[in-house]
Amino acid sequence: MQVHEPVFPPTSLFPSPSFKLATSAMDIESSSGPAQGGARAGGALARIWGRVKGVPVVAKDKAVEFATRVRKLGQDDPRRVIHSLKVGLALTLVSLVYYVRPFYDGYGISGIWAVVTVVVVFEFTVGATLSKGINRGCATLLAGALGIGSQYLACLFGKQGEAIVLASLVFLLGATATFTRFFPRIKARYDYGVLIFILTYSMVAISGYRVHELIQLAHQRLTTILIGGATCVFVAIFVCPVWAGEDLHSLIAGNIDKLADFLEAFGGEYFQCFDEINEKSKTDKTCLQRYKTVLTSKNIEESWANWARWEPAHGRFRYRHPWKQYLKIGALARQCAYQIATIHGYVCSDAQVPCAFKRIIEAPSMKVSSEASKALRTCASAIKQMAEPSCASLYVENAKSAVEELKAALGAAQLDDSVDLLEIVPAATVASVLIGIVDRVEEVCEEVIELAKMAHFKAPEKQQQQQMLHRGAVKPVVEGGGETVSVVVDVPALADRAECCTKTTEANSRASRPDTDPPMK
Amino acid sequence: MQVHEPVFPPTSLFPSPSFKLATSAMDIESSSGPAQGGARAGGALARIWGRVKGVPVVAKDKAVEFATRVRKLGQDDPRRVIHSLKVGLALTLVSLVYYVRPFYDGYGISGIWAVVTVVVVFEFTVGATLSKGINRGCATLLAGALGIGSQYLACLFGKQGEAIVLASLVFLLGATATFTRFFPRIKARYDYGVLIFILTYSMVAISGYRVHELIQLAHQRLTTILIGGATCVFVAIFVCPVWAGEDLHSLIAGNIDKLADFLEAFGGEYFQCFDEINEKSKTDKTCLQRYKTVLTSKNIEESWANWARWEPAHGRFRYRHPWKQYLKIGALARQCAYQIATIHGYVCSDAQVPCAFKRIIEAPSMKVSSEASKALRTCASAIKQMAEPSCASLYVENAKSAVEELKAALGAAQLDDSVDLLEIVPAATVASVLIGIVDRVEEVCEEVIELAKMAHFKAPEKQQQQQMLHRGAVKPVVEGGGETVSVVVDVPALADRAECCTKTTEANSRASRPDTDPPMK
Repeated sequence: MQVHEPVFPPTSLFPSPSFKLATSAMDIESSSGPAQGGARAGGALARIWGRVKGVPVVAKDKAVEFATRVRKLGQDDPRRVIHSLKVGLALTLVSLVYYVRPFYDGYGISGIWAVVTVVVVFEFTVGATLSKGINRGCATLLAGALGIGSQYLACLFGKQGEAIVLASLVFLLGATATFTRFFPRIKARYDYGVLIFILTYSMVAISGYRVHELIQLAHQRLTTILIGGATCVFVAIFVCPVWAGEDLHSLIAGNIDKLADFLEAFGGEYFQCFDEINEKSKTDKTCLQRYKTVLTSKNIEESWANWARWEPAHGRFRYRHPWKQYLKIGALARQCAYQIATIHGYVCSDAQVPCAFKRIIEAPSMKVSSEASKALRTCASAIKQMAEPSCASLYVENAKSAVEELKAALGAAQLDDSVDLLEIVPAATVASVLIGIVDRVEEVCEEVIELAKMAHFKAPEKQQQQQMLHRGAVKPVVEGGGETVSVVVDVPALADRAECCTKTTEANSRASRPDTDPPMK
Repeated sequence: MQVHEPVFPPTSLFPSPSFKLATSAMDIESSSGPAQGGARAGGALARIWGRVKGVPVVAKDKAVEFATRVRKLGQDDPRRVIHSLKVGLALTLVSLVYYVRPFYDGYGISGIWAVVTVVVVFEFTVGATLSKGINRGCATLLAGALGIGSQYLACLFGKQGEAIVLASLVFLLGATATFTRFFPRIKARYDYGVLIFILTYSMVAISGYRVHELIQLAHQRLTTILIGGATCVFVAIFVCPVWAGEDLHSLIAGNIDKLADFLEAFGGEYFQCFDEINEKSKTDKTCLQRYKTVLTSKNIEESWANWARWEPAHGRFRYRHPWKQYLKIGALARQCAYQIATIHGYVCSDAQVPCAFKRIIEAPSMKVSSEASKALRTCASAIKQMAEPSCASLYVENAKSAVEELKAALGAAQLDDSVDLLEIVPAATVASVLIGIVDRVEEVCEEVIELAKMAHFKAPEKQQQQQMLHRGAVKPVVEGGGETVSVVVDVPALADRAECCTKTTEANSRASRPDTDPPMK
């Protein structure tokens, strides 16, 4: 059950009419029912006929809508389709245990546990699959051993006593293990393991009362679970793997990018004066909305970080990659998003701040906002490319000096008698919160630099060299077809570091937006 | 893996020193390692001996710490202990299937499915248990039927063809069903059902190849799952039930209360002048921190609302209680919390706003904040008592008129030449965001009133009468023991509605805080 989080409504000295409109429209809708009551009975038959006639159309519409949604779901993340096929593959593989005679002779009906294991253990990411598989394996081993021990212990009390002792032990261990699931750390990492522990212990202890080849039962269960688990892990890792760590990495970089999107677009949106608003206001506000997903991404970040810890070294990620640092960055990005939510209210608001005052703070505010945006953009692209965010501090410094300019502008603003404080408060608030955002951005950058150190990101020099090598060969388009000539361009060493930074960032910022073509390759 | 969300650091024109301190302390710690390197080898033996000697002490400390944590976990929510015992009870009950001869003769080893069902279906709340139980039951029935159908179909293709057809069907259904789990709605409500569908279908279809009493197998599995599920539901509902709906109800009321806590304490905290700060500042800031859990409670609200839908009518909640409306209120409360997070930064900040300016906006700001707090408090206690929040609109109106006063104060503030705009901006920002918060509070109140309508909360008249009846009989404490005399007090009809509201709210606000004794009963 999901409720659409309402669009953040304007926070202003002048409550926006748009929100009131929505409410009154709802009132009208709900109150219009009884008024039409009188004309109801007459058209009932016509309505029923209309509905019957409409059934095929409605059914077709529904089918089309459903197909569209299925396609969209697959297009949004094609790995979903691949994951579904992988589950099918793992199930088919493991069912060989049943179909192939030698396997079946070995395991008998217990082979079904391999199938059960595949169904419950196979998850979307490698980390989650490994976590569940290892939890299940270890818990089964431990609980199986304990179960057999309990069985031998219970045997000492005679047939009547055995049932009582076993029932008491099941009660005791079941209750204790259930209680441990409330510990936050166990809940986060070993919840499934504890569940399987209770399950297996109860199974072995209880069925031991009737089944006499208990060791064989435990052995068969363990082996089939191992077969199932190994199949899952094999398919998860070797067939188009989805790594939780990689997803976390992209999520955090993406979240920082979304904040940068807002800050980049914010200045232009807020400081356009009122004659321009009517033309432009509704055109491109999506970049002002993207930050909203950052507000509520805490849970998914925590899950992914949890799973990432189970994953082996892969691709660009070594073993013991500092996943916890991503959570720190994510938390700071969220703090930043809270403040962005506050100023977003002022962007939407219709509060009429005198243009004269807006003009005073416009230039430094735009600079603060754009430099902060560049700093975030640099951090995001540094994370994406796993390079040191060398220019981020530079942009933060720029943003801070812009903050000083903004403060100076605010300090120098002489209010003449025609303008009172009340009217300029909204704009002053935006400026003040913006200054606060720079502090948050600085913290984000510091933590990203810390991450770069901890995870041994590449130094930017190497990376630029690589880029230069890539950029070396240019293939010019010769008009009218014909032969093409490859030209090797020798890019001179860039003297001005800051300029290089700007260029790299611009290229990255272009590359990070899917709607424009990446600049190369 | 949980990272402590950092205390929201001050958003101010003057970055706070506390945050810097923490960072440099960390630097010192990490850099002190290598410096001591030279003296290392000499003391190695002594250190090892020291460590060995310390083992019992460390072990004892750990044990004590663990015991403390266990006790705290149980004390925080005693229902956790009860839940653990309930799981033990359900497990023991269902193991009777094995111990009691007639049952065992009926089900044989399949009885173990009843145990499995209890372990995987029993959840903390009734709603979650019912959701899983019903999902499991329905999915097993459907998948069992489909599995048997597939088996008959596959038989038509001969022994060799049978395996191929079955494997293809398992692949196809497994992949399709896995894909449906990506639909957000299915994920939220039927995820477990789809999992069990895949599980049962694969089990029946695959084992059908070898087991020939397939119908009996499916029948046994279904019956034992029904026994297990029924045991869970029975124990969950009839032994100290924990209702997800009730938890959601309290969570939402509690969240609104936390926002009210902040707004109540905010004025006093922010407007104390600087000589007072040194004495008082560190005393009681917990009420300024409580709102933070509201920022991240979206997921838990959604889960509980999902489970609440599965619950039958219970206690004060009818069937079809408007759970979705709670999510709406929760989302609005969260919007309010985002803005509170912004002004919280200013409370912590050391920005030196001229006291003269603070004095100008102090009275109206405090009034805005306290009236908004009262409005929220009334809403929270109305939800708790399931009564119409009749006075909430009154407080919102008060808050709005206080907003007008605040605007007037801002408008009238004449800045003399000694004070520049820069210095007063933080205070003006707080005032402006506070005004925005009133809009959010109004929306929360509107939605709570809507909830009261939808859920047919009691009219306040009735409730006051009930309270008066309760208040009627007073039992005075006679010093020195001896006989007690019951006095019946006739409470006169309260002429002033607003006054009555204030009293009720104060009583509720006292009752809602656990550290003070509730005023009665």
